Amino acid sequence: MKRIACLQVAVAAVAGFVAFTALASGHADEEAAPIFAITIPSGYRDWKLISVAHEEGNLNDLRALLGNDIAIKAYREGKLPFPDGAIIARLAWIYVPSEENNKVFGRSQSFVAGPATNVQFMVKESNKYAATGGWGFAQFKDGKPAGAALLKTCFPCHEPVKARDYVFTHYAP
Amino acid sequence: MKRIACLQVAVAAVAGFVAFTALASGHADEEAAPIFAITIPSGYRDWKLISVAHEEGNLNDLRALLGNDIAIKAYREGKLPFPDGAIIARLAWIYVPSEENNKVFGRSQSFVAGPATNVQFMVKESNKYAATGGWGFAQFKDGKPAGAALLKTCFPCHEPVKARDYVFTHYAP
Repeated sequence: MKRIACLQVAVAAVAGFVAFTALASGHADEEAAPIFAITIPSGYRDWKLISVAHEEGNLNDLRALLGNDIAIKAYREGKLPFPDGAIIARLAWIYVPSEENNKVFGRSQSFVAGPATNVQFMVKESNKYAATGGWGFAQFKDGKPAGAALLKTCFPCHEPVKARDYVFTHYAP
Repeated sequence: MKRIACLQVAVAAVAGFVAFTALASGHADEEAAPIFAITIPSGYRDWKLISVAHEEGNLNDLRALLGNDIAIKAYREGKLPFPDGAIIARLAWIYVPSEENNKVFGRSQSFVAGPATNVQFMVKESNKYAATGGWGFAQFKDGKPAGAALLKTCFPCHEPVKARDYVFTHYAP
């Protein structure tokens, strides 16, 4: 059943990708991520802050979650599910100790954002992405989209938080 | 010399505080921080992201640096010193492990923003705050300003990064 749904998404995505490619001619750097046909949303670096986090292990990053106005409004009003048009951006940077800060503090305690790792987006379009909880997923590194294999892992990972419309991050007041 | 400068600031601040109190009548919750007479800038939670960080030790927080439009523009253009009117906000939340996230990852690796600790502001007014590098400093916890004793520690701590106009945080691309 899931497999069928996934195929439907794939077919829809291919159609979407073709449409996008036609629209985006002349914008060679705006490459769409596969499956969900998502491009980097314009101006996302200016969006408002949802929260911050630190992931250890392989990820080894500091991250910030930003939301477009639709997402931020839904977060602040505590409204679920997120309405269509909501986009959540996850920026991440390598987790690096700050020698400069530690010198001032007189001890090793300060970790800051190093070089960017990648940026991910969740885009809510309940009909378009019905097979994946209404969300499309994308990841870009230096402007280049991640492949389909990686993007197929997004939704299964987000399924445990179905009760919060598949969104892990809580709003930080 | 420093002591004199500090006293001058204190005198100016008392005058500023009186002026503020007169202006703010009817806004009892907009209490100004001492010394620099800074109130919580309206709408700061909507400002754009500068960067994120994690402090261990007593601070034990995850933090986000936000900037008003003047500060963000200066950061992005790499222009120092920051122009008058620039304000940098440092939000911080208790550093807490996320059991929910860890369950999904299958290992202990995820740390998220817990309850807010306090919010700090650096306000650039080169004449008004000439004795402290052109910056005024403030800290608020649950809307209540920190006392003068704490604020007197701000500038000495920022002095080692005089070459970057007394600002520790680098912009995260």
